[in-house]
Amino acid sequence: MAYFEDAKIGDRLELGSFTFTAEQIKKFALQFDPQPFHIDEEAGRRSQFGGLAASGWHVAAIYMKLIVASLQRRAQEGISRGEKPVAVGPSPGFRELKWLKPVLAGDTLTFASEVCAVRALESRPQWGLVNFYNTGVNQRGELAFSFIGSAFIPRRPAA
Amino acid sequence: MAYFEDAKIGDRLELGSFTFTAEQIKKFALQFDPQPFHIDEEAGRRSQFGGLAASGWHVAAIYMKLIVASLQRRAQEGISRGEKPVAVGPSPGFRELKWLKPVLAGDTLTFASEVCAVRALESRPQWGLVNFYNTGVNQRGELAFSFIGSAFIPRRPAA
Repeated sequence: MAYFEDAKIGDRLELGSFTFTAEQIKKFALQFDPQPFHIDEEAGRRSQFGGLAASGWHVAAIYMKLIVASLQRRAQEGISRGEKPVAVGPSPGFRELKWLKPVLAGDTLTFASEVCAVRALESRPQWGLVNFYNTGVNQRGELAFSFIGSAFIPRRPAA
Repeated sequence: MAYFEDAKIGDRLELGSFTFTAEQIKKFALQFDPQPFHIDEEAGRRSQFGGLAASGWHVAAIYMKLIVASLQRRAQEGISRGEKPVAVGPSPGFRELKWLKPVLAGDTLTFASEVCAVRALESRPQWGLVNFYNTGVNQRGELAFSFIGSAFIPRRPAA
């Protein structure tokens, strides 16, 4: 969507897939979440995860990486069609983040983002608030990760 | 806390402070959230944030870094008192993450984690679920970041 008025419930953006390698899992975890099952294969195997597992925050960061790439790609396509670029506003936060399945070394998650609520804001007439149901599904088709994100999206200026 | 039975509403863990440098902000953002206001000072100044702003996921990852360090320190202290180490269980996810104020280059957040709910689990008698209200307050005393986390904590084995 370019403007808030374009967002429709059910609009779905496929964000692509990402394979979590052991090296990436350890690199992220050593910086931000150095629990044994995130930095050591053997500790992972002995843990409830059953293998070297990505930090849940790593999974969230990869979702962010893919959605930013997707939005930047769409903005670029819009510009090449001669459209004026529209900046997505800030996110005030999100709800109900769920780590449903472990993400182990070698697992591939496929991410998507679907509009699940739209709300005009009386307090900020130049913005609307859009909620997105964001998901990461693994190579076995299991929902491994989900959350409800939100972002301020600019209203279309009056013609 | 070592076991679920030790967790009391209001128990508070001070996690320490972290200053977000421009270099760290850009390094995280280039990997995971390369929006202009996270990777370029001038774009940050022109944005609604008014300066180079940390990715919200960077703020969350730093919270994780500090709580893992704090829990590992406490476990080490327990071991040196001769206590048997108790592993905190996995987190099923969290709720109501709020990015309330921008975190700009040079800002210092002080993080804390407070028990806000405890629940025994009929379905998993060896675990309890504990909710934590986690906060990051900036150097002006403003709440910049909060979320309600949850973790499975082992029940104390019967004597």
